[in-house]
Amino acid sequence: MLSVDLNCDLGESYGLFKIGNDKEVLKHITSANIACGYHAGDHNVMMETVKMAKVYGVKIGAHPGFPDLHGFGRREMKMSAEEVYNLTIYQIGALAAIAKTCGTKVVHVKPHGALYNMAVNDKSIADAVAGAVAVVDPTLVLFGLAGSSLVKAGREKGLQVSQEVFADRSYQPDGSLAPRSHPNAIIHDPDLAIKRVIRMVREGRVEAVDGADIEIKADTICIHGDEPRALDFAVKLKEALKAEGIEVGRGCDAK
Amino acid sequence: MLSVDLNCDLGESYGLFKIGNDKEVLKHITSANIACGYHAGDHNVMMETVKMAKVYGVKIGAHPGFPDLHGFGRREMKMSAEEVYNLTIYQIGALAAIAKTCGTKVVHVKPHGALYNMAVNDKSIADAVAGAVAVVDPTLVLFGLAGSSLVKAGREKGLQVSQEVFADRSYQPDGSLAPRSHPNAIIHDPDLAIKRVIRMVREGRVEAVDGADIEIKADTICIHGDEPRALDFAVKLKEALKAEGIEVGRGCDAK
Amino acid sequence: MLSVDLNCDLGESYGLFKIGNDKEVLKHITSANIACGYHAGDHNVMMETVKMAKVYGVKIGAHPGFPDLHGFGRREMKMSAEEVYNLTIYQIGALAAIAKTCGTKVVHVKPHGALYNMAVNDKSIADAVAGAVAVVDPTLVLFGLAGSSLVKAGREKGLQVSQEVFADRSYQPDGSLAPRSHPNAIIHDPDLAIKRVIRMVREGRVEAVDGADIEIKADTICIHGDEPRALDFAVKLKEALKAEGIEVGRGCDAK
Amino acid sequence: MLSVDLNCDLGESYGLFKIGNDKEVLKHITSANIACGYHAGDHNVMMETVKMAKVYGVKIGAHPGFPDLHGFGRREMKMSAEEVYNLTIYQIGALAAIAKTCGTKVVHVKPHGALYNMAVNDKSIADAVAGAVAVVDPTLVLFGLAGSSLVKAGREKGLQVSQEVFADRSYQPDGSLAPRSHPNAIIHDPDLAIKRVIRMVREGRVEAVDGADIEIKADTICIHGDEPRALDFAVKLKEALKAEGIEVGRGCDAK
Repeated sequence: MLSVDLNCDLGESYGLFKIGNDKEVLKHITSANIACGYHAGDHNVMMETVKMAKVYGVKIGAHPGFPDLHGFGRREMKMSAEEVYNLTIYQIGALAAIAKTCGTKVVHVKPHGALYNMAVNDKSIADAVAGAVAVVDPTLVLFGLAGSSLVKAGREKGLQVSQEVFADRSYQPDGSLAPRSHPNAIIHDPDLAIKRVIRMVREGRVEAVDGADIEIKADTICIHGDEPRALDFAVKLKEALKAEGIEVGRGCDAK
Repeated sequence: MLSVDLNCDLGESYGLFKIGNDKEVLKHITSANIACGYHAGDHNVMMETVKMAKVYGVKIGAHPGFPDLHGFGRREMKMSAEEVYNLTIYQIGALAAIAKTCGTKVVHVKPHGALYNMAVNDKSIADAVAGAVAVVDPTLVLFGLAGSSLVKAGREKGLQVSQEVFADRSYQPDGSLAPRSHPNAIIHDPDLAIKRVIRMVREGRVEAVDGADIEIKADTICIHGDEPRALDFAVKLKEALKAEGIEVGRGCDAK
Repeated sequence: MLSVDLNCDLGESYGLFKIGNDKEVLKHITSANIACGYHAGDHNVMMETVKMAKVYGVKIGAHPGFPDLHGFGRREMKMSAEEVYNLTIYQIGALAAIAKTCGTKVVHVKPHGALYNMAVNDKSIADAVAGAVAVVDPTLVLFGLAGSSLVKAGREKGLQVSQEVFADRSYQPDGSLAPRSHPNAIIHDPDLAIKRVIRMVREGRVEAVDGADIEIKADTICIHGDEPRALDFAVKLKEALKAEGIEVGRGCDAK
Repeated sequence: MLSVDLNCDLGESYGLFKIGNDKEVLKHITSANIACGYHAGDHNVMMETVKMAKVYGVKIGAHPGFPDLHGFGRREMKMSAEEVYNLTIYQIGALAAIAKTCGTKVVHVKPHGALYNMAVNDKSIADAVAGAVAVVDPTLVLFGLAGSSLVKAGREKGLQVSQEVFADRSYQPDGSLAPRSHPNAIIHDPDLAIKRVIRMVREGRVEAVDGADIEIKADTICIHGDEPRALDFAVKLKEALKAEGIEVGRGCDAK
């Protein structure tokens, strides 16, 4: 039976800066990427988010990012691969301890923001992230952009990887995301987006911006949690997946 | 055979702010309290310090503190017991992951600065710290001021505790440290300080500021690493302990 | 003609952590207390908030707080008076430069959160804040709790002060706020709250929790901006003040 | 009479992280670039440094940097020109207020680290920094790498600029610094370094790494303060300049 995972960034509040709609999002996803205190989140938010995810039966993952709360980890920072390795270990460890105290455990790791993007093309960054995950716990699943350097690095380290696709983004012929500056970068029609996802899951193929039909592996789908429309889409997507006989949730466990 | 541990705060540099004399200190101690990124230290410094401690055969401990880099964790911060619990777990977890990747492990936990001091008398803070340690790993040894609430809280949680004494500080009749404002708060004579330590280890007794002879348990001695004179004292102290047939280093393992 | 000022904390977003409803609040107040980057706010938010306040004709003030973004400046931090003096100057200066570049200027200073509360009773903190304001610019108006040490300290430094009252809080016979733990600490009935405010402005008196009728000077009223109900109250309050012939907005200029 | 300024970064301690040798450095320089709390420094350190600089008769300048304490402002951060403008204003304002309370004033602005380097070639960053300086106070002198975009941007904004040269670095034919990876990037011989400086000041020329003789304007010389050898060099350099009849200290005032 085909299966796919739905993941979303969670636990991004910080102190009294409350953002996101975590409780509602948890009803619609199967994997939560939990911020670890560097770009967002803190020890209190992490504890609360892990507990909530457990209640909703959502798998938890570490979401390590750059140490840049002000830029929310979205600013590229020039940093050595060694430092990326160290900060990834630190953040996974912090969340792992919190998860343990809640009687649960971290299942996956997905780098955040600029770190995620830099790991797409920069092999040294990808190796640093994957190496950190493998050394902390080789049973962790590494999430990365489908077809990216990060996915390759994860495989090389012997990790189980979960290839991530974006329902609302279009792809270039080489499998990379079309940049937001491209006129057709965003798929605005939810029905079309859903059709594309189903084909990615079922056939492992998607139509690129130039009309080429390319291969893509869709293990997990990124769900945005920051606007009501995004959750409506998640609901619709889940219904469509089920109607197609595609299981929602086992994606990141299955190779 | 009698034994006592020598501990010192380590890994307190942050980014390019290099402080301390860690390499030299490691030659003289048996337990290193490693800052975990909240009041000092960072992922790089932690990694480097853990590796160095391993080379020197020094046991490593987590040294969780308040999230106050600017105040070096020495400023009292009003904080709920729940938050203290959460931040202690976070910091131990971060260091534990780093230690694991170096093929070693965290042996003890000693709260830092204002958190240490607040845990001396405030039972809710002491319970929060001890509870956090116990839930992360019940085999961890909890370091706390000899006779303090923290030591009691550790015992109640079933933890092995290591009672800490200060060679250069005098005690009040109730076993608490004489405040620095007291005229005889500091023991300036190193020979006297060493004699007192040996008696604490051997007889479990020390003379308080008022002349009373009080009970005190000395499992581990706090060594200061921030000035050359302090290291000279550590060398002298070790020699004196050995001359007395007191083993240096097994203290924190023994109940 | 009687007059009173309405003030509200503003510009409390930080990076991508967007909080508050500043644009709406600006329609209802006459003085904005703008966070200066220590407990909330940042250089971008400050610039944007100053520009918006100018558009709405709202006077701007610096809202210096403790360097504790995670605790939103609401946690008491043990700190020397000298450090409070320095951090107050720093934060006023940062906002003053931003205001200057927008063709406007800082009119008042109101310490935030725990710093405000500590300045109520602690004369050394009050002196440090007032001294900092006076030395940066003696024409600045100092906002402080009516009757507090801060108000006295401001007068002693020769500053114009604006005494602040709370519409929804009750007072103790000595003029201090009834603690939130007091059963009647909060005035829940908006009509009663408005009546009390009008009497404070008109007669300089209010009924304390024990029924005593005490003196209180009301130059500026604290408006909460964090919930819709608070803004509804502000609208009602303004209407009531106008109906009573009390001008809204000149309060903080008048001794 | 010829004149040249000697500048050095100062006030880079943070909280209890004490670094640098400021008191000694102040004896040897004529302009101090004072960190403003973003990449280093804090309100206490700034206050203390301004007071010390005043005692030694050294002109003070704001040294704004990226908000990256951990990376000491040396990591490139992708940031909009608008944000660079805002953070430059904020930092100058904070120091200006502190200077005012000490009865002195900020004379110049020199961006720090990665911000300085990015302003060398990136016109939008250079314009943002220069624009911020001009709008805060058009009498401020802008320090920038000799011949760089920052110097040009400063002139365009009508600012007085001080062109900075490095005694221990070699130059490329286009006037830019030879990258540290170049075999001859560093001038190791102090006598040669001094000869080059004197020629830069006297003739406005220097020999580039390829042997070409290029134009360069030397208004201010960057002195390193982080090692004893650097200060010895500063002493030697000053003596040599005086022996050549070149005044030390008026550089940044003279166009």
